[in-house]
Amino acid sequence: MKLLFIGDIVGSPGREMLQEYLPKLKAKYRPDYTIVNAENAAHGKGITKKIYHELLQAGADILTMGNHTWDKKDIFEFIHEADSLVRPANFPNGTPGSGLKVLGTGKNKAVVINLQGTTFLPPLDNPFHAADELVTEAKKHSDIIFIDFHAEATSEKQALAWYLDGRCTAVIGTHTHVPTNDSRILPGGTAFQADAGMTGPYDGILGMKREAVLNRFLTHLPARFEVEEGSTQLNGVFVEADKNSGRATSIKSVQINDDKPFFD
Amino acid sequence: MKLLFIGDIVGSPGREMLQEYLPKLKAKYRPDYTIVNAENAAHGKGITKKIYHELLQAGADILTMGNHTWDKKDIFEFIHEADSLVRPANFPNGTPGSGLKVLGTGKNKAVVINLQGTTFLPPLDNPFHAADELVTEAKKHSDIIFIDFHAEATSEKQALAWYLDGRCTAVIGTHTHVPTNDSRILPGGTAFQADAGMTGPYDGILGMKREAVLNRFLTHLPARFEVEEGSTQLNGVFVEADKNSGRATSIKSVQINDDKPFFD
Amino acid sequence: MKLLFIGDIVGSPGREMLQEYLPKLKAKYRPDYTIVNAENAAHGKGITKKIYHELLQAGADILTMGNHTWDKKDIFEFIHEADSLVRPANFPNGTPGSGLKVLGTGKNKAVVINLQGTTFLPPLDNPFHAADELVTEAKKHSDIIFIDFHAEATSEKQALAWYLDGRCTAVIGTHTHVPTNDSRILPGGTAFQADAGMTGPYDGILGMKREAVLNRFLTHLPARFEVEEGSTQLNGVFVEADKNSGRATSIKSVQINDDKPFFD
Amino acid sequence: MKLLFIGDIVGSPGREMLQEYLPKLKAKYRPDYTIVNAENAAHGKGITKKIYHELLQAGADILTMGNHTWDKKDIFEFIHEADSLVRPANFPNGTPGSGLKVLGTGKNKAVVINLQGTTFLPPLDNPFHAADELVTEAKKHSDIIFIDFHAEATSEKQALAWYLDGRCTAVIGTHTHVPTNDSRILPGGTAFQADAGMTGPYDGILGMKREAVLNRFLTHLPARFEVEEGSTQLNGVFVEADKNSGRATSIKSVQINDDKPFFD
Ligand SMILES: [Fe+2]
Ligand SMILES: [Fe+2]
Ligand SMILES: [Fe+2]
Ligand SMILES: [Fe+2]
Ligand SMILES: [Fe+2]
Ligand SMILES: [Fe+2]
Ligand SMILES: [Fe+2]
Ligand SMILES: [Fe+2]
Repeated sequence: MKLLFIGDIVGSPGREMLQEYLPKLKAKYRPDYTIVNAENAAHGKGITKKIYHELLQAGADILTMGNHTWDKKDIFEFIHEADSLVRPANFPNGTPGSGLKVLGTGKNKAVVINLQGTTFLPPLDNPFHAADELVTEAKKHSDIIFIDFHAEATSEKQALAWYLDGRCTAVIGTHTHVPTNDSRILPGGTAFQADAGMTGPYDGILGMKREAVLNRFLTHLPARFEVEEGSTQLNGVFVEADKNSGRATSIKSVQINDDKPFFD
Repeated sequence: MKLLFIGDIVGSPGREMLQEYLPKLKAKYRPDYTIVNAENAAHGKGITKKIYHELLQAGADILTMGNHTWDKKDIFEFIHEADSLVRPANFPNGTPGSGLKVLGTGKNKAVVINLQGTTFLPPLDNPFHAADELVTEAKKHSDIIFIDFHAEATSEKQALAWYLDGRCTAVIGTHTHVPTNDSRILPGGTAFQADAGMTGPYDGILGMKREAVLNRFLTHLPARFEVEEGSTQLNGVFVEADKNSGRATSIKSVQINDDKPFFD
Repeated sequence: MKLLFIGDIVGSPGREMLQEYLPKLKAKYRPDYTIVNAENAAHGKGITKKIYHELLQAGADILTMGNHTWDKKDIFEFIHEADSLVRPANFPNGTPGSGLKVLGTGKNKAVVINLQGTTFLPPLDNPFHAADELVTEAKKHSDIIFIDFHAEATSEKQALAWYLDGRCTAVIGTHTHVPTNDSRILPGGTAFQADAGMTGPYDGILGMKREAVLNRFLTHLPARFEVEEGSTQLNGVFVEADKNSGRATSIKSVQINDDKPFFD
Repeated sequence: MKLLFIGDIVGSPGREMLQEYLPKLKAKYRPDYTIVNAENAAHGKGITKKIYHELLQAGADILTMGNHTWDKKDIFEFIHEADSLVRPANFPNGTPGSGLKVLGTGKNKAVVINLQGTTFLPPLDNPFHAADELVTEAKKHSDIIFIDFHAEATSEKQALAWYLDGRCTAVIGTHTHVPTNDSRILPGGTAFQADAGMTGPYDGILGMKREAVLNRFLTHLPARFEVEEGSTQLNGVFVEADKNSGRATSIKSVQINDDKPFFD
């Protein structure tokens, strides 16, 4: 089973990057499923129904989200019927949408889970305890379990990966918008990378216009953040796993930018 | 000018890793100067006088620090005379030690600066404003200016690098203990990598014993953290620069671990 | 039903203050039950078995705790059998101890609950959702329900009080160590005061030695905090309620210090 | 010298409360100067030029601000010429506006300073170090020095008051919107109250609509905060001081609400 994950799509530069390169990446990696984090897809904050469909049309099989899930009001209009979107599962009971989705049928099933960390982020339900329940639920469908853990602190990300080692196929972090150079397969067979990085502007600060972000650090005055222009990047992770055991057999980073152009 | 930087040494596993591989790395990269972050060198927290000398003897030319600078009381006994140690420069005026040191003489001079971020960390003096002053001071000695920016948030790290682009040779982040896969040379000639990663246990959580860290996330009860045992890793960055202009000409990650063994 | 609540006992000065004045306060207010927050009773951090018994002997009927519950290891030795102690109920399932206790028998029953906020504090389980369950459980025993809400943010404290208005007798905040001047009975009959204040040194910073705390703000260097000496204070709240409905009928602050000496 | 301070005016309910009661309070207390915190005067967030003039017309001699200073863009249009407004002085050099203003002339001079805490708030310049400079500057004009310390943590507030004890007339906290019951004169002659409380809705959560704030705590979904309606309150502090020494001679809380109606 081959899984391609693409990190946080930031604004229209990110969406265009996906449209241009996802077909090429599919030709290269031949993934069974493509998972795309879309929490910043709409102007850097949240997602709209239009963009939801645009990203699926571009080739995503399912979208994951994060702390920006609810930034565009539109989400409340379509999340109930958005079969191809997971939001962090550890929002309180009763939250619209779902944090776990099953892809495919029969022996081709795979489960995608989205969780959010609580270190330097809002105090959602404990993601470790939530993970226990989610993995149990997922196992009813498939041993191929992919988790997008949207979190800030590297300690929390490493902790969840080790906690779930042997119980899921992959724990891949998002949220910092910077790809980490630590991809590995833990002893129990769980693939891990602390952060997949982002997809969108290459010369922004986390994808946003440098000047506004810099001004905030320099002055602590309010600033209006917009998506940066110019050069772009794509970051993601490619994981291969044994269908029967759910164990990961390989993990590698996927990166496209001016310094690392795409090669077939 | 060639600069080798080694990320946070964690405990005795980190110190042993440095002792074993620094000679080999020097043989391979032939750096003019080797800079080592030592904020976790003593049992994972702080540094002692004995370890200070041990790290220099192992081949470090200068040590940088971070939020754990003061964790071992011993530091207050020897920091005044520790010519080869910089602590974050943006501690308040009157703090023992210095945040800027000049290495070498004549045309071989290089300046090393240590700064600490203030996002998700204590409210030290504004590191951006401090950087303005420090770079001005450094320029009196050399255009080769290396900055270890000890910070949590990727936004703050990217922001400082872009802010200083063209004014220093390199801005390399530390603190998250996870190496990032984003090394690049910004348009003005400043080399950047959001985090160099750590040196020490490979199977810990940020280098510390997994069980204790995990228990804290699971229970929120107090836990005593100790350095993990077993397999080890080394992470760092190698930067080459033009001596006359101070502009970086190349940056590459340095990684040694079970998955990426050392090659000459 | 009359309930006397005494805010966070800090160290031996706090314990002595309780011993001296609780008898006088009982003579004055004739409470059915006396509830005492003891999270700082042992040298300013946590509680020991010896101090647990000392406080009960001094006249407390039950002790509440907070974020310092686990600071002294001793707690893990005796909390299982400590029938007169509640720790924040919203620690994860499986945490030693209990967050709800029933006092008295028959028509004299009263329930005491301890909860901890999650704003500027660790991400325990959501205290609002926990409160729903706890109040339901409490109602099986009595309509007299007293909640010590140990929290930092005034928004979270006001929010919980309004959320529970009409469902419990009192929501009294602790943790900031400063008594607030906002005691009132909300329209549904729930008595509220954002913080009861502390009991112990009057001239410390939150009860701790001024010099050490000040040094930390001035230098951001580590500091060892100890309980302040000298003049002392006691702060608490007295609530009267209708036994049948559980509605509060009066709330008043209780304060003893050099500026407000005790009067019969 | 008599100083009347009124805590954070929240929206139009706060402004109306000021208009109605400030004349009565002036008749009762006969203050030399009236200082009003206005950081929430415009719909709960920030201030406009129109409201700036409205508050002065209502009888304020000078307005203080806080973390919401810049929420309404209008402030950038008029702060340069706003002689009767101080914003937190420890924003970085170059920030529009001023953090220190001198009221009156000759022997009737008084200085008003605004500072912002950095605990649980953005990392502005160290308020303790800033205070040293500001008090030195203020002393050139008068020994009557009033400081509105806009901060969250009670530790930081108590620390600043003790730090400045004997060097200024009063340190009065704002920001939590809840009046504290701890007013006192410290041994050196500085009057202190950790928080003055707010002026505006009495039945809101910090003055904002309960439902929206509660929903955020219950769901962690975004919420749009608006000023609450209905019953109102006013909170402040009245300080008397010796003109020659600048030492406070009395401090008392000023409170008007449904539970504590105004008396002449
Ligand atoms: Fe993102
Ligand atoms: Fe995010
Ligand atoms: Fe470190
Ligand atoms: Fe660190
Ligand atoms: Fe306490
Ligand atoms: Fe506490
Ligand atoms: Fe305010
Ligand atoms: Fe505020």
